[in-house]
Amino acid sequence: MELARLEKQLSFLREIDRLKAVVRQSPLLDKSRKENSAEHSWHLAMYALLLNEYACAPVNPHRVVQMLLLHDIVEIDVGDFPIHGGSSVAVQAEQEAKAAVRLFGLLPQPEGNEFLSLWQEFERGETEDARFAKALDRFQPLLINIFTGGGTWTENGVSLEQVLSRYGPVIQKGAPFLWTACEQWVRQHFAQQASGS
Amino acid sequence: MELARLEKQLSFLREIDRLKAVVRQSPLLDKSRKENSAEHSWHLAMYALLLNEYACAPVNPHRVVQMLLLHDIVEIDVGDFPIHGGSSVAVQAEQEAKAAVRLFGLLPQPEGNEFLSLWQEFERGETEDARFAKALDRFQPLLINIFTGGGTWTENGVSLEQVLSRYGPVIQKGAPFLWTACEQWVRQHFAQQASGS
Repeated sequence: MELARLEKQLSFLREIDRLKAVVRQSPLLDKSRKENSAEHSWHLAMYALLLNEYACAPVNPHRVVQMLLLHDIVEIDVGDFPIHGGSSVAVQAEQEAKAAVRLFGLLPQPEGNEFLSLWQEFERGETEDARFAKALDRFQPLLINIFTGGGTWTENGVSLEQVLSRYGPVIQKGAPFLWTACEQWVRQHFAQQASGS
Repeated sequence: MELARLEKQLSFLREIDRLKAVVRQSPLLDKSRKENSAEHSWHLAMYALLLNEYACAPVNPHRVVQMLLLHDIVEIDVGDFPIHGGSSVAVQAEQEAKAAVRLFGLLPQPEGNEFLSLWQEFERGETEDARFAKALDRFQPLLINIFTGGGTWTENGVSLEQVLSRYGPVIQKGAPFLWTACEQWVRQHFAQQASGS
């Protein structure tokens, strides 16, 4: 074992401390503040450990957990792109891809390339593991909005139809049963909003 | 699949959102605020993914990551017990054991008992996986203190000898090479403090 290798690994682990300062749109459930991307990643990894039985096809829980632990690290360079923000998908993808190369490039090889590949797999969302990880990444903020009585939907004036189209396909594709449950909760939420209760 | 089972899983995932509000003694590396236990758990899981080659014996990275993701969840009920706080180890252990039963008891079975067992295994620190997980749980805050020029050591007037005795045995036991590196950095840090540089 050599110190130079450890120092490279630690330079990466040191740099990613900055993910704790990237603030997302979603609030904590007690509404005391907005969630940051590091604690969001922790929470998603717990979702993955517990809910993999709902994946559309058998998944490798360890790979899904890994993907979710590192899926937002690019936000250190480019920030969080909110789902209801209307930002350009192409611009976002390009900036994030560049950030991934820089950040995972801090690591020694082969770990640097392995992490980069895993991040790219998540982004493409084509494998079963990535589909399920992406479904959870939509499912968790949806639940926050349900549990907090509106959250980012209320803040951004998002309609029932927009919720169904922005969250539905991704959750449905990776975890159909979770979407069935969500759709019911979302419809109930908007029905309650409409009746003013 | 039944909705009642999913609802139990979600009641746990909802409850553990509160870990984001448990504040630790360690600062973020930019010193803007103290770290919370959820983002600390995320960071530790990343340490486990990257540094398992330094474990004293071959470990199962997935189990180590799982342990670290859930090792602090008991703090939701009992708060964080600082390493330099002088609190009673027996009282802490009793309170945490009770919290573990309540929190993991929110889950359906067998997951509830599996998580409880994994948490207990971490606490006992006897298996190779638990030893390595515990070593990382000491290594990360030590590095924060090195990287921030003193951190909780300066705040609490902790001496070189106290650092060596409070961090050394646990890191040495689970990851000897990491402790060899640490000891060097720690001695350098205190030498610089003493020389006022």
